[in-house]
Order: sequence, then structure tokens, then C-alpha cells
Amino acid sequence: MTRCGVGVVDGAPGQPLRMVGVGVVRTPAEEEVPRRLLAIEQGLESWLDAHRPDIVAIERVFAQHNVRTVMGTAQASAVAMLCATRRGLPVVLHTPSEVKAAVTGSGRADKAQVTAMVTRLLRLDAPPKPADAADALALSICHIWRGSASAKLAAALAGTTSSVRPARPARKEYRA
Amino acid sequence: MTRCGVGVVDGAPGQPLRMVGVGVVRTPAEEEVPRRLLAIEQGLESWLDAHRPDIVAIERVFAQHNVRTVMGTAQASAVAMLCATRRGLPVVLHTPSEVKAAVTGSGRADKAQVTAMVTRLLRLDAPPKPADAADALALSICHIWRGSASAKLAAALAGTTSSVRPARPARKEYRA
Repeated sequence: MTRCGVGVVDGAPGQPLRMVGVGVVRTPAEEEVPRRLLAIEQGLESWLDAHRPDIVAIERVFAQHNVRTVMGTAQASAVAMLCATRRGLPVVLHTPSEVKAAVTGSGRADKAQVTAMVTRLLRLDAPPKPADAADALALSICHIWRGSASAKLAAALAGTTSSVRPARPARKEYRA
Repeated sequence: MTRCGVGVVDGAPGQPLRMVGVGVVRTPAEEEVPRRLLAIEQGLESWLDAHRPDIVAIERVFAQHNVRTVMGTAQASAVAMLCATRRGLPVVLHTPSEVKAAVTGSGRADKAQVTAMVTRLLRLDAPPKPADAADALALSICHIWRGSASAKLAAALAGTTSSVRPARPARKEYRA
């Protein structure tokens, strides 16, 4: 809820990936939840307007984490889902483990590993900033690669793809 | 997420309450979450369009419940918060215990007690239907009564009030 990472990646399985954009939608912790959700909606709408992705990927929220955090994350991801679905964009969810496994080969990779691989896979000169948006880019990459395994997503990838990782850090968008 | 109760109540502290509307926004359990959230948004927007409440009250989601349920509830309530905040309507949250205590005198009252008191307080000929929307009406009544205790809400109540109880059952709206 405080920092919702956003990443936009162009790519398709077997082709080079290209980072189109990366950033964070921030909301002030002292603000009340309804206003924060509205700010997240406005922030995500700006990203969607600017990049017009074909698909939005969102981090799947997990129950086993701290419950307060989970609720904020669930609410932020609900906003991301709404923004995408209102535009008729397909929404796909990936777990943090799926994302880590996709970009590092290990579902238990640490943040440094994920950032290193995101930097390499997107052929960036330096790690993406803000640092916590690297997760959003990783989610995008995961989606482009995993999406290709599914017929549903394969069809969607024929167009463009986008993904979102709300709550703690990241939301991402890709284009295929 | 499956049944989001909605109640609309006109009232002010010390004055008779009047039920304006009651219902449930339903979404099919087999549908994917993003589409269900969109359906909830559309359903709540229709209620807001039809009744133009001054305030929206939403059930505060709790962590200690079943975590899967909590996440769906958190997401549905996020949608309700967004719908209200986008219209510039104040949003207030009340816990289930606050609601039960407000209408029955006990924070641990059972469903039958809550329904009986809602029926009495709104001077209905029969318990409100659908049954699980009684909670939404109880939330509305709680809000009208408790709201008056707070200066912030008192100011808001000078206009009109509305409340929402999403997720399991109920969302409600009141007018003061």
C-alpha cells in the first residue's frame, strides 16, 4: 500500500526483453485507507494510460505473511485488478516464488539475486531504480516467460502484455 | 466476495430510522477474482447512483478469521472504498462487534438477535430479505448512532450518510 512497484516490459518468449518503464506508486502511510486506494487507482491509471499494455500481471497475495500486511496488499492488488479488468485487459497472478524461480532458477532467491538477474535480463547498465521496483520487473519477466506455456496466455501474448505487483513494492507491465 | 450485502437507511440520532433499500451484490464463485471485483464495482455503483448517500459505512475486515475469506473480504471492501471515495463520499469502518453492540447491546450477539433488532429498529413487518443483508442494515444503524458521537461524523451527518458491508454479506448506506 505504501509502495506499489510498477514495471513495463516488452518481450516474447525466445526474444530479447526490453524495459519500457519502471516506477513506484506511493501513498502516504498516515493517509486513511480509502484515500490511499484512490491514489493507487489514479497512479495505476496513469501508468496504463501511458503504456497501454496488453496484459497486466499482479503478484498473488499470500496468506501466510503478516496479516496486516496481507490485507493492505490484497486491497492494493484488488485496485490493480479493477483497473486492468475495466479496460478489458487480461489479468494474471504469479506468486513471489514463481517470480523468483523464473528469473533466478530458485524460488527462494534473495532480493540481491533477483535484482542482479533483472538487471542482466533487461541488459540495464545499472540495477533498476527505485530498488524495490526490481521485483515488479521480475514479475513482468516471469509473466512473459511463464505465460507462453499457457495457451490462454499465448493467445494474449500475441498482443501485448502487462503486469502489476502491488502492495509492498511492485507492479509491472510487459508488452509482448 | 460471493454476497456483498447493501443497506440504505435514512436516519439521525434520536430520530426514527427508515429503511430505504436492502439487497445483495452477488458474484459467481466460479468466476475469476478480477472479474468478480469488476462486477462488485458495477453493482455498488448502481446502488450509489440510485440512492446518492452522503456517507458510506463499510465493515472493518478482520485478520483473525479464515485467511482466504479475509483476503476476499479485504478486496471487496477495497472496491467499496474506491467507489465511495471516487465520489468524494466519506467512508467509515465499523467492526462486526461494534455493529452487534450498537443494535443489540452485545458485541457477541448472534445473527438471529441482530436480525430481530434490525427488524424492530426499522419497524419492518418482517425480517429483511435477503437474510444476510440484515447485517448490512445493522451496520447502517450502527453508523448513524455511533457516527453522532464523533465530531467528524457529526459534521458529515449534517448531510446524508451511507454505509457498506462487503464480502460475506452486507453493504449498507444510510441517509441522515
